[in-house]
Amino acid sequence: MTVYLVGAGPGDPRLITARGLELLRSCDAVVHDRLVSRQLVAEAPAGASKICRDGLTQQHVDALLVELGRQELEVVRLKGGDPYVFGRGGEEALALTKAGIPFEVVPGVSSLAAVPAAAGIPLTHRGLSERITIVTGHSAAGDELDYASLAPTPGTLVILMGLAHAGSIADGLIEAGKPPHTPAAVIGNGTLPEQQSRVGPLAELARLASSVNPPALIVIGDVVALASQLGGHNLERAA
Amino acid sequence: MTVYLVGAGPGDPRLITARGLELLRSCDAVVHDRLVSRQLVAEAPAGASKICRDGLTQQHVDALLVELGRQELEVVRLKGGDPYVFGRGGEEALALTKAGIPFEVVPGVSSLAAVPAAAGIPLTHRGLSERITIVTGHSAAGDELDYASLAPTPGTLVILMGLAHAGSIADGLIEAGKPPHTPAAVIGNGTLPEQQSRVGPLAELARLASSVNPPALIVIGDVVALASQLGGHNLERAA
Repeated sequence: MTVYLVGAGPGDPRLITARGLELLRSCDAVVHDRLVSRQLVAEAPAGASKICRDGLTQQHVDALLVELGRQELEVVRLKGGDPYVFGRGGEEALALTKAGIPFEVVPGVSSLAAVPAAAGIPLTHRGLSERITIVTGHSAAGDELDYASLAPTPGTLVILMGLAHAGSIADGLIEAGKPPHTPAAVIGNGTLPEQQSRVGPLAELARLASSVNPPALIVIGDVVALASQLGGHNLERAA
Repeated sequence: MTVYLVGAGPGDPRLITARGLELLRSCDAVVHDRLVSRQLVAEAPAGASKICRDGLTQQHVDALLVELGRQELEVVRLKGGDPYVFGRGGEEALALTKAGIPFEVVPGVSSLAAVPAAAGIPLTHRGLSERITIVTGHSAAGDELDYASLAPTPGTLVILMGLAHAGSIADGLIEAGKPPHTPAAVIGNGTLPEQQSRVGPLAELARLASSVNPPALIVIGDVVALASQLGGHNLERAA
């Protein structure tokens, strides 16, 4: 009857919201991203349909949600992070709206702050950063990001999905005027037991990234320096 | 023994994480922000100390957490939104580090995306916005925000705590070149039953804000126009 666009959180399955978990435990069908924790998918009832969207185009996912929504089913669309932060949840919501299917957005903990936090990095801090900028780097092939605008922007820069292009991102920012010694971090599998965190100057971003596995997030800015004091006190890892 | 810096989420008490709720239900003491839901504070055990930080300076809060942490207590510091997103959680974490008190950061759903979502606004959307910028407006008295830098920045601008200065923020952005017809929204008490959402052009931000109660968040950018299609399908309000 209703399609719930639910944020699964940044990785650690305990970081789903209480509301999201309640809906998941009572749904008839769950359509989940590949990277969503298997432990979370297993929270759906034994009789519920469990569909991984891997291999489906966004248009197919939209159509699948509409089709499931037309049946007498309670559907959870379980998305990594938050549905409305670089999650294409808006497209799914529009498809459901056009089809007249009732839906509800249940926000989630985005990796944008949770993953840096798990590495000891607060995105804002008095005297260090009072602005956050978030972009994705997944298509950055050297000059696709707007480096001229990003380089002089004060505060903290978070780049989601930028691992494969870390070197060209650093080059682009430095050529546009960002100081090469700006503190930077690359964090892979944040909040999970296999989390990897690498901290160093922006100029060495490619080297830092080379030993990190996806999915990964890049943080650039003075707050990264706090990791040396706060990085030992992360979210306790799930067993 | 441990101080947990826990994000309570954006308002609706069901949007705390499963991990945060579990810690809250077994703690010995909770130190909470004034705006955190009373329903959430009531989840702490009956015998737990419940301390509202209202009226305490940040330095007093830091000292209180250190003092509680030195006792044989499990302490939850329950903060609105996410502890590390404009929450001064970094200062509390540094105070605990310096005192040698073990602590753990448990991220929360920040209002930055959840409140716009509850008003039908995704922060990113293909073809409309691929960048998010977040600042606070609580001290903006006309010229304190960096309008020259913010006005030409593409994508979605989120201003936390800007309600009282909405008029001067709009003036500053428009004078610095932001088109007056840019879609804008003011959302008060987002995700709660008393949520108020006002949408209109940036030039009318002061009027939109005048009928909204704090706490409120301002969103500026083309994604705001999606609220006309998606705004009727919000997070179902808690009873």
